[in-house]
Amino acid sequence: MAISENTPDIVTAAILVIGDEILSGRTKDKNIGHIAEYLTALGIDLKEVRVVPDEEDEIIEALNALRARYTYVFTTGGIGPTHDDITADSVAKAFGVPIDVDPRVVEIMQRRFQGMELNEARLRMARIPQGAELVTNTVSGAPGFWIGNVIVMAGVPSIMQAMLDTVTPKLATGVRMQSETVVAHAREGDIGTELGAVAKANPEVMIGSYPFFDGTGPNTNLVLRARDPSKLSAAKAAVEAMLADVKAKLGR
Amino acid sequence: MAISENTPDIVTAAILVIGDEILSGRTKDKNIGHIAEYLTALGIDLKEVRVVPDEEDEIIEALNALRARYTYVFTTGGIGPTHDDITADSVAKAFGVPIDVDPRVVEIMQRRFQGMELNEARLRMARIPQGAELVTNTVSGAPGFWIGNVIVMAGVPSIMQAMLDTVTPKLATGVRMQSETVVAHAREGDIGTELGAVAKANPEVMIGSYPFFDGTGPNTNLVLRARDPSKLSAAKAAVEAMLADVKAKLGR
Repeated sequence: MAISENTPDIVTAAILVIGDEILSGRTKDKNIGHIAEYLTALGIDLKEVRVVPDEEDEIIEALNALRARYTYVFTTGGIGPTHDDITADSVAKAFGVPIDVDPRVVEIMQRRFQGMELNEARLRMARIPQGAELVTNTVSGAPGFWIGNVIVMAGVPSIMQAMLDTVTPKLATGVRMQSETVVAHAREGDIGTELGAVAKANPEVMIGSYPFFDGTGPNTNLVLRARDPSKLSAAKAAVEAMLADVKAKLGR
Repeated sequence: MAISENTPDIVTAAILVIGDEILSGRTKDKNIGHIAEYLTALGIDLKEVRVVPDEEDEIIEALNALRARYTYVFTTGGIGPTHDDITADSVAKAFGVPIDVDPRVVEIMQRRFQGMELNEARLRMARIPQGAELVTNTVSGAPGFWIGNVIVMAGVPSIMQAMLDTVTPKLATGVRMQSETVVAHAREGDIGTELGAVAKANPEVMIGSYPFFDGTGPNTNLVLRARDPSKLSAAKAAVEAMLADVKAKLGR
């Protein structure tokens, strides 16, 4: 698997969510958050997410943009048995490869769907682009697939999560990002300037500032992230010293 | 406001979510689903969503791609007082306009933040691209803004929702999409082929098929959407007739 960044420590990913039901608001996506947290834990940096409708041109354009830029692209949705499930055919077109009913999938479905007719609709779920590896579906049988750097998964969260577990051992992973959270016990606006100076002095540590309301009023979570634990500790110490300084200045 | 589609009935939109915390999985996005449902109710078609990190180049590239394609682009996140809040400056660069502390915002903040220092960090929230209209923030004071066809909102859901309510009266809206849901009481795989035929015969009605598990086993929601109520009714009748046929054939 080619890694698309200069530093070999970095493995990147994008998510492509495919589905009119997410864009209409009828279904609330639960996959983005799960995949994001999962990839972060693995040491893969999620860099972009796109949601597109069930339209071939839109799927192909987004997929080609994302697969050129990131180590992996994870897609969710559009691999069921109905006319609006066009992900497999769109992926085949994006890769310029043929697609047909895959005998490996027919065998899985024959074993799994005993007593159910393997009709035209169900055989639609057996359409796999040429050259793709199957991604086992332990929940409901019909598999996802993996072609090039694109991993095609179901949209139903329980099935998607099982598929993600299946592919995990085969994923290249980078050095895991370490993270520390410091609760500022201060308003974001009171510490923003000083925090900016700490961020500038610690360029290899990403420092995010997230305001929230605690029981008594505005408060701020400061989240520090870095791959190098010693740089992370140094930045954390600098943040804590900064917070003490600001509070002394404000007389708190 | 120019409408970017040929049919004047259609108003489109995209969402651009800006924030490392969504991509790391630390924060689970709650804005996409809210905005999606909200726009659908207004008669605006949400066509695409992107999530990008707090990086200027990424924000500018995504914003320029989206604002050229859709009637409106709604952004969330990155308008607070800290160094990682770079949305306003990135939007100004994308539009090629200057940005500076806006006296209208300073006035709002002076009124609102009595007893708090209007320091450098807080003044960062007053940076508004030249030519932008302000979007009132009834929750916490510091406003969003509207420039060209781009509406820049906060990332905190309660503030974002209030800002969306504020801009609603000024949005062009299309003919509202009508929707009907038919519960199939059938497995998706048993009706997929016949449903495809109904979809093909009713090209102006979007028909989505969404499997779910009810108390007893697999079931399917069929969601029909159209702007023309008579076409929607005709397609619904065709779906119901198809379901009766399939069940008769399967002996249920």
